[in-house]
Order: sequence, then C-alpha cells, then structure tokens
Amino acid sequence: MASGSVEDLVETLRCLPGVGPKSAQRMALHLLQRDRAGATRLGEALLRAMEQVVHCERCRIFTERQPCRWCSDENRHAGEVCVVESPADVLAIDRSTDYRGRFFLLLGHLSPLDGVGPADLGLDLFENQLDAGEIEEVTLATNQTVEGLATARYIADLCARRQVPVLQIARGVPVGSELEFADGGTLSVAFAERSRVVG
Amino acid sequence: MASGSVEDLVETLRCLPGVGPKSAQRMALHLLQRDRAGATRLGEALLRAMEQVVHCERCRIFTERQPCRWCSDENRHAGEVCVVESPADVLAIDRSTDYRGRFFLLLGHLSPLDGVGPADLGLDLFENQLDAGEIEEVTLATNQTVEGLATARYIADLCARRQVPVLQIARGVPVGSELEFADGGTLSVAFAERSRVVG
Repeated sequence: MASGSVEDLVETLRCLPGVGPKSAQRMALHLLQRDRAGATRLGEALLRAMEQVVHCERCRIFTERQPCRWCSDENRHAGEVCVVESPADVLAIDRSTDYRGRFFLLLGHLSPLDGVGPADLGLDLFENQLDAGEIEEVTLATNQTVEGLATARYIADLCARRQVPVLQIARGVPVGSELEFADGGTLSVAFAERSRVVG
Repeated sequence: MASGSVEDLVETLRCLPGVGPKSAQRMALHLLQRDRAGATRLGEALLRAMEQVVHCERCRIFTERQPCRWCSDENRHAGEVCVVESPADVLAIDRSTDYRGRFFLLLGHLSPLDGVGPADLGLDLFENQLDAGEIEEVTLATNQTVEGLATARYIADLCARRQVPVLQIARGVPVGSELEFADGGTLSVAFAERSRVVG
C-alpha cells in the first residue's frame, strides 16, 4: 500500500492464528478505513497484556497478580485440583459446571517426540504441591486424545504413589447427540463405562 | 481468565473483521502462550499505523507522505487515472497487470439508501482534477456489482461532460474457467461484448 506502516501492519497481523496474507490485508484495510479507534484500543490492549500478564505461580493460569483470582478465591476448595491442558478449558469448565475447586494448567500435553516432558508441563511444581500435602483430590480433565490420555495416566501415577485420590471426567455419548452419529470409539467407551440405573 | 488485561485483549480483538468471541479468545491465548514477541510487534504496528497513515490528497490511497508513492512515481503516467473502489483493488491491479498510470480511490460506491453520495467518494476532488486538466484518460475498474456499475456510470458522465476519454475493464468469462460453470449474467455479457478474431 505504498506505506511502510501499512505493510508492517499487514505483516504483523499474520502472527494471529489462522490469519494468512489475504486476511491480514483485509483486516489492516478494514481497521484503517473503518475502525481506527478500535485498532488503537487493540494496540494498547496488546502491549498492556504482553507486559502485565504472567503465569500464576500456583496453577500456571494467565494472571496479572500472584496468586491468580482462582487460587486466591476463598470460596473455592484449595485442596481440590482439576488438571486441564489449556486456559480455554478453564473458561469452559467454569461456564458450564459447578466445580468449585482450583485448577492446574499443563499448557500442553506430554509429547516426547516434540521434546515436551513433565517439566515443560509444570509437573515438577505439581509434584511439589503433592509432596507438601496441598492437594487432597485430583480431577483429570485433559483432552480425550491419545496425548491427553497419556498425560492423564502419567499424572494419575504421580498421585497414586502418594495415595492422593484421582477422578477422571465421564466419557461417553455427548448430551443432545444421536447414537447413529457417535463414532465407534465413543460408543465403545459409553458401553464399557455404562452405569447402573436400577438395581 | 481472571485478568482484566486478558479480558480487554479478547474484547478488543473483536474489532477485527470476521473475529467473534471464540476466535478472539483463541487468538488472545495463542499470543499470550506462544507469540508474545509477535503480539508486541503487532501492538506497536497498530499504534504506529493509526497515527501515521492518512489518505493521499491526490488519489485517497493510504499513505504516510503526501503525495503517495503512486502519485509521486515519475515512471507512472500522471494523466492516466484508474478509478477503483478499494485499496485492495490497487494491490491486485498492481500485482497482475502492466497498468502504469495512477489511481483514484473511491473507498466505497454510490449508495443513496446508505447516505453515500458523490462527495463521500471524493468525487468533488476528482471533478477538480478533471477541471484542472490533470486527467487525460480514465479507466473504470469498479466492482462488477449493481452499485459498482452505477458508480462507474456516474463517473463516466462526469468525464463525458468534459470530453475526457473513458475506458472500462473487459468483462466476460474468467480465464481458466469452464463455460459450464459460468453464471448466466457473465455468459450473456461475454457474448454481447465478444470481439472479432479474424476478418
């Protein structure tokens, strides 16, 4: 666009996930033409967030203060810990369930081929909390993928060695879905883990 | 996410076109977790662009200096003007054609129902340039939509009144396409505006 600033803007917009050269150009032109105030607010919000947001030293969630809102919430049971992979999982669980313990974020899953080991997931910190007796019960809510399940297995072992009870979230056919469209793996788990209703 | 800065970031990301609450959250978490340097660069680029980028006084394109790179390029024929709706059109034309005149940007099209009249498209500026004899030939390259064509018609009339020659870009079946999949309107124009190859 004949202008270094505009080219820079298009180029830097590509750091957003899912934004390629065409979308970046469309976004830049949209902001310049129709929403300069919004773009200025976005620029300021980006700089402020990158400067001020850190990981909670206790649960690794994004926060501006130590400990984070979740870990310092006195209405939450500090001994109950739900282990999840990503911050988005925390938001989803908080929106939809009545879980009232705290969280522990892995920010990923075990992946030896990519060089992601237990320390990269903060599991040394988690073990310290187990050893210090800060954790009375663990709920595993990693993704139901091969990597997520392997990571859950690893954490369950850490807890078992210290006699800390571990729960896992229920697996089965999604609520509101039709059996016809459930995949085989889900259906198989739903039958293997069926529960008694009467008798 | 327990943090005002993160919530602000998610909220302000929604000023980007096509970004809803879910994408905004995904983008914010991605930047915080994986690309803080990129996010900082993006924030700076946004603020710099919004502060420094203005419209060229001659052609209305986005620029940091007056006149813009296109209008001050001595290798371009200043008397030839190509009228387009958006900055993206300029980039596309520059990338794919050997057009070597300058541009004039409408930044929209005539739309009386939305209150967009000739002055909103900078056509008073365009008329001044016509009256000053700065324009020797006009190429109309507005979109082939009802509004784009109506706008082109209006501009052609402005030029006709001053005996300035006007060209329009060719319409027809896209290169590389199959006739079977061309829409009726395109096919109809392709036949109405067919050109003689032999004799």
